[in-house]
Amino acid sequence: MNTSEFRRRGKEMVDYVANYMEGIEGRQVYPDVEPGYLRPLIPDSAPQEPDTFEDIINDIEKIIMPGVTHWHSPYFFAYFPTASSYPAMLADMLCGAIGCIGFSWAASPACTELETVMMDWLGKMLELPKAFLTEKAGEGGGVIQGSASEATLVALLAARTKVIHRLQAASPELTQAAIMEKLVAYSSDQVVATLGTTTCCSFDNLLEVGPICNKEDMWLHVDAAYAGSAFICPEFRHLLNGVEFADSFNFNPHKWLLVNFDCSAMWVKKRSDLTGAFRLDPTYLKHSHQDSGLITDYRHWQIPLGRRFRSLKMWFVFRMYGVKGLQAYIRKHVQLSHEFESLVLQDPRFEICAKVTLGLVCFRLKGSNKVNEALLQRINSARKIHLVPCHLRDKFVLRFAICSRTVESAHVQRAWEHIKELAADVLRAEKE
Amino acid sequence: MNTSEFRRRGKEMVDYVANYMEGIEGRQVYPDVEPGYLRPLIPDSAPQEPDTFEDIINDIEKIIMPGVTHWHSPYFFAYFPTASSYPAMLADMLCGAIGCIGFSWAASPACTELETVMMDWLGKMLELPKAFLTEKAGEGGGVIQGSASEATLVALLAARTKVIHRLQAASPELTQAAIMEKLVAYSSDQVVATLGTTTCCSFDNLLEVGPICNKEDMWLHVDAAYAGSAFICPEFRHLLNGVEFADSFNFNPHKWLLVNFDCSAMWVKKRSDLTGAFRLDPTYLKHSHQDSGLITDYRHWQIPLGRRFRSLKMWFVFRMYGVKGLQAYIRKHVQLSHEFESLVLQDPRFEICAKVTLGLVCFRLKGSNKVNEALLQRINSARKIHLVPCHLRDKFVLRFAICSRTVESAHVQRAWEHIKELAADVLRAEKE
Repeated sequence: MNTSEFRRRGKEMVDYVANYMEGIEGRQVYPDVEPGYLRPLIPDSAPQEPDTFEDIINDIEKIIMPGVTHWHSPYFFAYFPTASSYPAMLADMLCGAIGCIGFSWAASPACTELETVMMDWLGKMLELPKAFLTEKAGEGGGVIQGSASEATLVALLAARTKVIHRLQAASPELTQAAIMEKLVAYSSDQVVATLGTTTCCSFDNLLEVGPICNKEDMWLHVDAAYAGSAFICPEFRHLLNGVEFADSFNFNPHKWLLVNFDCSAMWVKKRSDLTGAFRLDPTYLKHSHQDSGLITDYRHWQIPLGRRFRSLKMWFVFRMYGVKGLQAYIRKHVQLSHEFESLVLQDPRFEICAKVTLGLVCFRLKGSNKVNEALLQRINSARKIHLVPCHLRDKFVLRFAICSRTVESAHVQRAWEHIKELAADVLRAEKE
Repeated sequence: MNTSEFRRRGKEMVDYVANYMEGIEGRQVYPDVEPGYLRPLIPDSAPQEPDTFEDIINDIEKIIMPGVTHWHSPYFFAYFPTASSYPAMLADMLCGAIGCIGFSWAASPACTELETVMMDWLGKMLELPKAFLTEKAGEGGGVIQGSASEATLVALLAARTKVIHRLQAASPELTQAAIMEKLVAYSSDQVVATLGTTTCCSFDNLLEVGPICNKEDMWLHVDAAYAGSAFICPEFRHLLNGVEFADSFNFNPHKWLLVNFDCSAMWVKKRSDLTGAFRLDPTYLKHSHQDSGLITDYRHWQIPLGRRFRSLKMWFVFRMYGVKGLQAYIRKHVQLSHEFESLVLQDPRFEICAKVTLGLVCFRLKGSNKVNEALLQRINSARKIHLVPCHLRDKFVLRFAICSRTVESAHVQRAWEHIKELAADVLRAEKE
C-alpha cells in the first residue's frame, strides 16, 4: 500500500470507525457466537499473494463484528470501563506514525520528555503530594506502564531490591539468598493496598496502614486502578488521603479517564528506587547525555525494553477535554450509578450490597444465590445488556458498572426496566 | 469532540500522517534538542477549559517534532528496525475503535479467536513444528505478548512452576521454598538461547543445546526477537533448526515483519504449562464456556490482565502483503546489508567485525577504539544518518542496521559516502 492509497483507505477507515461509534447502540452488546466460530470462516494459512483492502474491510463485518463484545455500547455494564475517546484515537494515529521506541531519552527525546511532563500534569490534577512529581529537581516522578499488574510488579521488585541493599549495607555477611528467604510482602485479599476494588469498589484506609508502613520502613504501594480517575474531582479527592505515606502509587487512565488502553500511570517518590532495580546499560543503548543527571531513560523504570509514545494520548485528551470536561465526565458516571442505585432501592425485591461511591452498583435479589445466578443468566442470555457477577461474603452479587462514554440516563432506565422484567420471570419460575 | 468533528479531524490526521511519511526523508533523522527542551514550551499544568484541535496540531510541529528521533527515516540505521506499515496503522485505528479488553474469551470472542488463528498462520509461515500450533486439537499454541522481555519472563515463570510441581509430586515432603533454593536457570551472555543477538546478530546452536535440555528435562526457551521474521524465507529457515527441542519460542513481528509495535509472538508446546502458572479466576471473569475445554482465556498466558485486539494488525499485514510480499521485504533488507558490507570491504581502512547474516553490519575502522568512538561521535553529531555502537570482544564497533521500510540502495550508498568523508576527517585529525 503506497501513501496515496493510505490517504484514501485511512479516510475510509475514519468513516468506518465513526459509523461504528454512531451505530453501536443498535448492535447486540454481547455476541451469540459459539467457541471456535471464527476458524472455519477464514483460510488455514496466510495468502501467498496479497488480498485487497476491500476484501478485508468486508470481512470485518462478516467475520470480526459477529464475535465482538461491544465494550463501548451504552448497554455494556460489565467489568469496569475501558477508556475510549476521539482525541485519544487521533493521538494513537500519530503515535503509530511516529512509531518510535522510547527506551532511552536519545531514542526520541520528545517521547520521554512529554511523558514526564504529562505525568506531572496528571499528578497535579489528582493533587498528589509534590514528592511524587518530577517538576524541576524533585526526586520523584511518573511513568506510564502498560497495566496495573506491571506497575505492581515493578513496585514489588523495586521494594525487594531496596530492602536487600539496606540489609546488605547493615550486615555485609548476609547473602542475597539468605535475605530473600526472610522477606515478606503483606497484602490485603486484593494484593496490595487498594482504592476501589474490582469486586465492589471498596477502599483500604491509607491513614491507618500508611503510618505503620512508614514506621516499620516498609514499602507501601497503593493501587487505585479504576477509582484513581475520580480523584481529579475535589469531592472525591479525600479517598486518596494517606497517599502521602506511600512509596509508589498507580491508577489507570485507560479505565476511566478517556485515554484509550494502554496507559497505566505510576508515580514513585524516589526515582532512584526504580532505576536501582532495573538498570540495563548495554553499549548500543548508551548515549552522551545519560550520566548527566538531566535526563530520564524510561527503560530503567519498567520490565519491557520497548515502549510506545503513549503520552501523546494524555496530551490530546487533557487538552481537548480540559480538566473541567474530564471532571464533568466522571461526575456524570457517578450520578448515573446513583440513579441506578435509587431505582434498585425503590424495588423491595432487591437489595444494594455495597456502598455506592463511584460508578459501580453491587445489587441482588433478596434471596438465594441460585435465584441471582438465574437472573444473571437470563440477563446475559437476552443479550440486551451485559453484566458480570461477583461474590461478596459468599453472596452471589450482580455488578452494574457505568462504562460507556455515551451512556445516558435513558439507557440506565431501560436497563433497569429490562432487569425487573427478567427478575419477575425468574421469581415466577422459582414459584412454579 | 463529537462524531462529526472526528470524521473531519480523523481525515486531517490521516493526511498529516501521510505527509509525515512522504516527507520523512527531508527531516533531520536525529534531533538536536538538549535535555529538558520540552518543559518550557508547554504550560505547567493541564488547561481547565478545552484547547482546540488546531492548537494541538500546530503544537505537534512546534513542540513534538523537533524532539523526535525519526525511526522510519531511510537514514535511520540505529538499534534494530521497529515495524511500520500502512496496513498495520489502519488495523490499529480499528483496534482503538473496538477498544475491547481481551482477557477472556467472553470479553470479546473475536479478539481471542483471531489471535489464536493468526498465531497459527504465522507459525506455519515459519514452518514451526506442528507441536507449537493450536490448529484443531493440539496441546500447543501461540499468544501475542507486549515484548520479548515479557515472553521470556512468562517462559521463566512457567518453567519454574512446572519443575516445582514435578518435584513436589516426586517428593511431597519438599516445600516450595526448599525447591526454589535449588533451582538454576542457565543462560548465555544474552540471557536465554538466542537466534540473532542485538549486539551482532549471532546465533546459538540449538542442535547442540536442545538435545541436552531435553535429556535433562530442562525447559528450553528460544528468543529470536529480531531474526525470527527472516525465517519466513526458506533460505533463512535453517537458522531455526533445533526449535523442535524447545518448550517455548518467541520473536517480534513488531521489529521486522511490518506489524507496528507492540506484537511479540510467543508459542509453547504445552498450553497447560502457561495456564498452570498464571491461572486467575475471580468471579467477575468467569463465563459459561470456560471449563468446556473449547476456549482460550489469554489472561492465563501473560502477566497483565488487559490486552488489546492486536491480532487485527497481523491479519491486515499478512493479507495485504501476502507471504510473498513479506518475503520480498525481508530479502530487500538483507540485500541492502550485503551491499553495505561490500562497500566496507572495498575500503582497506575498514573491517567487518561479525558475519553478516541478516540486516545488520558490524564494522569499524582498523585501529583503536578511540578513533572509532570519534568516528561515531562525528556521525551522530552531523545528524545526517543515525547509528549506535556495540562492543565485540573489547572492540568498539559501529552497527549499521537496515531499518526503514522505505530504505533503498541510494540511501545506503549516500550513507556510506558520508561515513567515508567523516572517517577521512577523523583520520586526518588523528595524524595532526
